[in-house]
Amino acid sequence: MKKFINKTDDFLRESLEGFGKAHSDIIKVNFDPNFVSRKNKTKEGKVSLISGGGSGHEPMHGGFVGHGMLDVACPGFVFSAPSPDQMLAAAEHVDSGAGILFIVKNYSGDIMNFQMGAEMYSQKSDSIVTNDDVAVEDSTFTTGRRGVAATVLVEKIVGSLAEDSGSLEDCKKIGEKVNKNAGTMGVAFTSCTTPEAGKPTFDIGPDEMEFGVGIHGEPGRKREKIQSSKKIVGNILDAILDDLKPENNEKMLLFVNGMGGTPLTELYLVYDDACKILQSKGVEITRSLVGNYCTSLEMQGASITLLKCDEEILKNWDAPVHTAAMRWGM
Amino acid sequence: MKKFINKTDDFLRESLEGFGKAHSDIIKVNFDPNFVSRKNKTKEGKVSLISGGGSGHEPMHGGFVGHGMLDVACPGFVFSAPSPDQMLAAAEHVDSGAGILFIVKNYSGDIMNFQMGAEMYSQKSDSIVTNDDVAVEDSTFTTGRRGVAATVLVEKIVGSLAEDSGSLEDCKKIGEKVNKNAGTMGVAFTSCTTPEAGKPTFDIGPDEMEFGVGIHGEPGRKREKIQSSKKIVGNILDAILDDLKPENNEKMLLFVNGMGGTPLTELYLVYDDACKILQSKGVEITRSLVGNYCTSLEMQGASITLLKCDEEILKNWDAPVHTAAMRWGM
Repeated sequence: MKKFINKTDDFLRESLEGFGKAHSDIIKVNFDPNFVSRKNKTKEGKVSLISGGGSGHEPMHGGFVGHGMLDVACPGFVFSAPSPDQMLAAAEHVDSGAGILFIVKNYSGDIMNFQMGAEMYSQKSDSIVTNDDVAVEDSTFTTGRRGVAATVLVEKIVGSLAEDSGSLEDCKKIGEKVNKNAGTMGVAFTSCTTPEAGKPTFDIGPDEMEFGVGIHGEPGRKREKIQSSKKIVGNILDAILDDLKPENNEKMLLFVNGMGGTPLTELYLVYDDACKILQSKGVEITRSLVGNYCTSLEMQGASITLLKCDEEILKNWDAPVHTAAMRWGM
Repeated sequence: MKKFINKTDDFLRESLEGFGKAHSDIIKVNFDPNFVSRKNKTKEGKVSLISGGGSGHEPMHGGFVGHGMLDVACPGFVFSAPSPDQMLAAAEHVDSGAGILFIVKNYSGDIMNFQMGAEMYSQKSDSIVTNDDVAVEDSTFTTGRRGVAATVLVEKIVGSLAEDSGSLEDCKKIGEKVNKNAGTMGVAFTSCTTPEAGKPTFDIGPDEMEFGVGIHGEPGRKREKIQSSKKIVGNILDAILDDLKPENNEKMLLFVNGMGGTPLTELYLVYDDACKILQSKGVEITRSLVGNYCTSLEMQGASITLLKCDEEILKNWDAPVHTAAMRWGM
């Protein structure tokens, strides 16, 4: 297996240990149950944000724990939902009296386990379910649409409001607005290999791409020959805009996300193609994010997310953040 | 070809256009000749730092242009040295009266073209050549050792001193100290494909790795079967420590660098293995950097860099930086 690995059973623990050591100024890692929390205790009266999901999408979610974003992240094994006891332990760890908001990507296993964790937790909590992937309804592990890269934007924007003393209700409200205002679609050129399986998640020909792929390699809309970047980007944007139905001159955040194995040069080329196409459609790009944020191990490919921005969203997007993977303003 | 690309000839230009648009708050891109400069003009009397090299190693170097790091980066085509007229145009663009320091990785083409650029430039300039790769002497494109990931550390540390009014002589002196105090070695599990070639740079078996690989896929010390992360990391560290010969309890910066196609989880696992081994050898890890900074397109693999740190190096490492790819303290 072409991986840096010792034993498959130790993979997640050793990776988390390294993450904890490399970023000990920001976070700490708890084991058994596994969760990543802020180094400094969440202040009294601040709504606590907890997210999580299967590993393999790094830096999501552990890389987003810190000031202005998450309080805790619960990593499951690669592409496997975390367990309810992780969520419960995380909730009890951060309990600051103002309630807990769980941010959950829409996969059946995650939904079920987060719900069980929330039921076991005796204090006030609520949840947001992200489902920004416009590619398909009812995928391999999902009823409804899949939650993908817009989850990063939800975590940043809700994180800012929570830091700024937003109530549990207001945090949920802005999170749901961001999810509703966002659409994502991805494409894969190659598959990815989980340490547990030791072989590619799906087969794909040397000149093929999966259009609308999910972040665990789930099937998209179609398997087809690789096209020019312009064509791929144009088709993705058509699908997203068809879903979001923006006004003319609507202000949008453009997020080009790498799936893990695509060079930055290509992500910036995708960004350039997207800018040109969006400009021709009367969309104003008001904020940008380009890089590997919601990945699928070493998959080659990318997703594009558009987010309709109002003043409240922009203010919370721009606010300072200090995490391992996203940092500005401090 | 499994790439986001329109036409091969347009690849670099379109990627740079996207980079310029995505980070217009920090940098601007000049075309024909191509260079990335700071958005704001370098202040009078500040030593200007210019680096560059073939593209394909992103975020190096364009991602390191900004406050506290480079003034300009000159990108060549993928894995090809930039031309002397790029260096000359870059130098004339930033000329601030205090001299220019060129930071050049040790490859014959880069050395030759940077030298010609410097000779064509009429004002005061000097250069630092990085050659931190302990794997081999006299590689495919190199006389002496190759310049690789420690170049990132040189650019950060010299960049801080230049921002802090360091003279041309002092900037060169600290840069040479960082280069001398640093050692790097890398390993590749897979090859990489340049847009121009359209096929992998080298062949490698499904269970093989290239131990000591260069950042353009140059041969290393040996081709062998993939081993456990602990063994790979142990062998790399032995080679670096053999070169650096640290004192007992020497303080070092540990930099685990992804080659582009390796998931973050694996890089953190490598970091964890390196921490454990270094601790057993009496090395104190005083600073850390983990991520994709000096890449080889989509190559799966990683390099480890160790840097012996004194107070001057630490102070300049910790100083604020604001670039597309490295940002803290502001």
